[in-house]
Amino acid sequence: MSFFDSRWIETPRHARTTHGLPRGFRAAGVACGVKPSGAKDLGLLVSDAADTTSAARFTQSGTPAAPVLLNMERCALHGLRAVVVNSGNANASTGRKGLDDAAKMQGAGAVATQVGNERLVAVASTGVIGVPLPMTNITKGIVAASKELRPDGDEDFAEAIRTTDAFPKTVSLEVALETGTVRLSAEAKGAGMISPGFATLLVFVQTDARLSPETADLLLGVTVKRSFERISVDGQLSPSDTVILQCSGASGVAIEQETPDELRFGETLDAVLRQLALLVVKDGEGARRVGRVVVRGGDAEAVHRAARAVANSQLVKTALYGGDPNWGRISQAVGMALPGMAPLDLDIAIEGVQVCAHGAFVPHDADALNRAVQQPEVEYEIGLPGDGAEAELYFSDLGHEYVTINAEYTT
Amino acid sequence: MSFFDSRWIETPRHARTTHGLPRGFRAAGVACGVKPSGAKDLGLLVSDAADTTSAARFTQSGTPAAPVLLNMERCALHGLRAVVVNSGNANASTGRKGLDDAAKMQGAGAVATQVGNERLVAVASTGVIGVPLPMTNITKGIVAASKELRPDGDEDFAEAIRTTDAFPKTVSLEVALETGTVRLSAEAKGAGMISPGFATLLVFVQTDARLSPETADLLLGVTVKRSFERISVDGQLSPSDTVILQCSGASGVAIEQETPDELRFGETLDAVLRQLALLVVKDGEGARRVGRVVVRGGDAEAVHRAARAVANSQLVKTALYGGDPNWGRISQAVGMALPGMAPLDLDIAIEGVQVCAHGAFVPHDADALNRAVQQPEVEYEIGLPGDGAEAELYFSDLGHEYVTINAEYTT
Repeated sequence: MSFFDSRWIETPRHARTTHGLPRGFRAAGVACGVKPSGAKDLGLLVSDAADTTSAARFTQSGTPAAPVLLNMERCALHGLRAVVVNSGNANASTGRKGLDDAAKMQGAGAVATQVGNERLVAVASTGVIGVPLPMTNITKGIVAASKELRPDGDEDFAEAIRTTDAFPKTVSLEVALETGTVRLSAEAKGAGMISPGFATLLVFVQTDARLSPETADLLLGVTVKRSFERISVDGQLSPSDTVILQCSGASGVAIEQETPDELRFGETLDAVLRQLALLVVKDGEGARRVGRVVVRGGDAEAVHRAARAVANSQLVKTALYGGDPNWGRISQAVGMALPGMAPLDLDIAIEGVQVCAHGAFVPHDADALNRAVQQPEVEYEIGLPGDGAEAELYFSDLGHEYVTINAEYTT
Repeated sequence: MSFFDSRWIETPRHARTTHGLPRGFRAAGVACGVKPSGAKDLGLLVSDAADTTSAARFTQSGTPAAPVLLNMERCALHGLRAVVVNSGNANASTGRKGLDDAAKMQGAGAVATQVGNERLVAVASTGVIGVPLPMTNITKGIVAASKELRPDGDEDFAEAIRTTDAFPKTVSLEVALETGTVRLSAEAKGAGMISPGFATLLVFVQTDARLSPETADLLLGVTVKRSFERISVDGQLSPSDTVILQCSGASGVAIEQETPDELRFGETLDAVLRQLALLVVKDGEGARRVGRVVVRGGDAEAVHRAARAVANSQLVKTALYGGDPNWGRISQAVGMALPGMAPLDLDIAIEGVQVCAHGAFVPHDADALNRAVQQPEVEYEIGLPGDGAEAELYFSDLGHEYVTINAEYTT
């Protein structure tokens, strides 16, 4: 099963890959001229089931983009039937006009998908910040996309929501439950402005299982915490982050709370979101390698601060890029995160090789360690005093391609 | 007066540049083989006045280097006569052996400088973390340096404390006070692991004015807050940061508290430390441009968090490097720093051009702005709701040279 290609993600036992969207869903992606390149930049996705349930999570930014504000204020987030997404322009820092434009997108989406009730349509925009949305293009794009809606339109949809992503991020699975087979698909975009702290990109997940809004919300909440809240490309929280799970129920298989099927479905959703999160980190704007940092200790706040400091350290990230087991930078980052705790009883292991114990270097096989950090995935384990708390984060390296992309990707 | 070359630093009115150390001081810098390159790597500086006063500030890291721990625990920080510094090895994360080595450096320094009392000798080390100090080299270096001590040895000393610095950072001034003329000199090193949050490098300042330990401490505390606590190269606090001010009193001019001379001397010290801090940012491991962010608003905590988020943002830094007035990234960074404040009444001006008002874009002359951000210094002004609080930070850009330096500078 090639989608789950990381040693850090357990492949779900009851899932196998397939193609297209779950029953009840149609999607499309078209080019409407927001992106100067002429690439696809408008995606439309709809569930045709009137009793579709949903759950959503949004950025915690203090400067959220207009579509995020609109979704939070004017959507029935437990029953979303359609999503309208554009790439190439984030409709962020666009003031009242931005809110009006987001509302127009929502209204046009409700008409074009025949959902009717605009409160059941969510909107999302991603791209440049601070530029008004070209509404003529957007409206034409929504109409064009509505004519292209297809059960296998997920690839086009995924293509249309990309910005700096080097590759599309989609999956389509069949999940064998005890009471029947359901399908689960997801389309994600994200490569920069990725920070732990919450949902850090655009992710759309569909299933034809029937879930109550409460179950959908519970499962999405738990799995987002274990996936998109645990990744960092550049420590930058975006104003646009949006994750939406929609459940059409069209399979006729209902997933009740606290059943074996809920566990099985939850495990699959968990693996899917974790793998998508890892793909975002791997695509981290020029990333060559992915790091995983696990911090263990007795103080929950301290282990999280230490993990975040390591994952967001420019020095750790450039060392990861250089294939350099420079553990002194791990020690430095942890020290920065935990002022006033000197001298700190700190243990560090890289790829299972202990390099630091009780705050001091440990003699080790430097050649073996040097070889180990040349691999595409590098693991850092950090021990702080005490037991019972653990924090885990995934992060990309920092290399020349990141600089090139971000020094040249301009307003 | 070429040392003060930034529009952001007011040139002190009563100072003029000169050469060499203030009366009473001698310094030297030699190569002792810690740096594989064979460059100078051991510096020694001593005040020959028995009643020298001093003040010091150190990193707040939870994993401070051994010399920092030693200085804090075993030095008479109000009467330091000598400093022994090596570059090429930070003596950090080196455990008990590291503390022993720092103590040996201190002892050797006390003998070699004839200060005698080791509590009057501070030590500092900078370079790679987690590698034991080569003590045979260090001891030989201290002996060799002691034979080279000269009143004009400040340039050699400054050379010997450099690591990744592209240029040495020194100044030597004569300051005309009402009661006589005193001298002030300083040698600094630092280009990476520079974060606001405190003293972020090695800085040694000498004067032949006579200051009480309390006055020295007060002046150093205030000026460090306005200089080295306001800069960020990569948001990384170092375990080694040390700032030491020594006052030999050899000019015979005493500076009393709350006198015009204290003000005049303090203004000069302030300008010197701010300019040195700016030089560190300009030297920020490959930096092409320096940014200054000023955040104003009603909430002191909020303005500081916002300023730090902007100064440490990889996205803002790469845009600065690219000469790109990408103010959306400023908005995004502020939003990240201030979750739960949406929608935020945010104003942004770049080089005096208002680009965002009340959270939304403002039409402006894009060509003029594009030209303005090609200059070596770029100023960002951010307005949050309310009045009375202000935060100011200086930061370097993030470019290819930073990646090259930090991906290849290995343990």
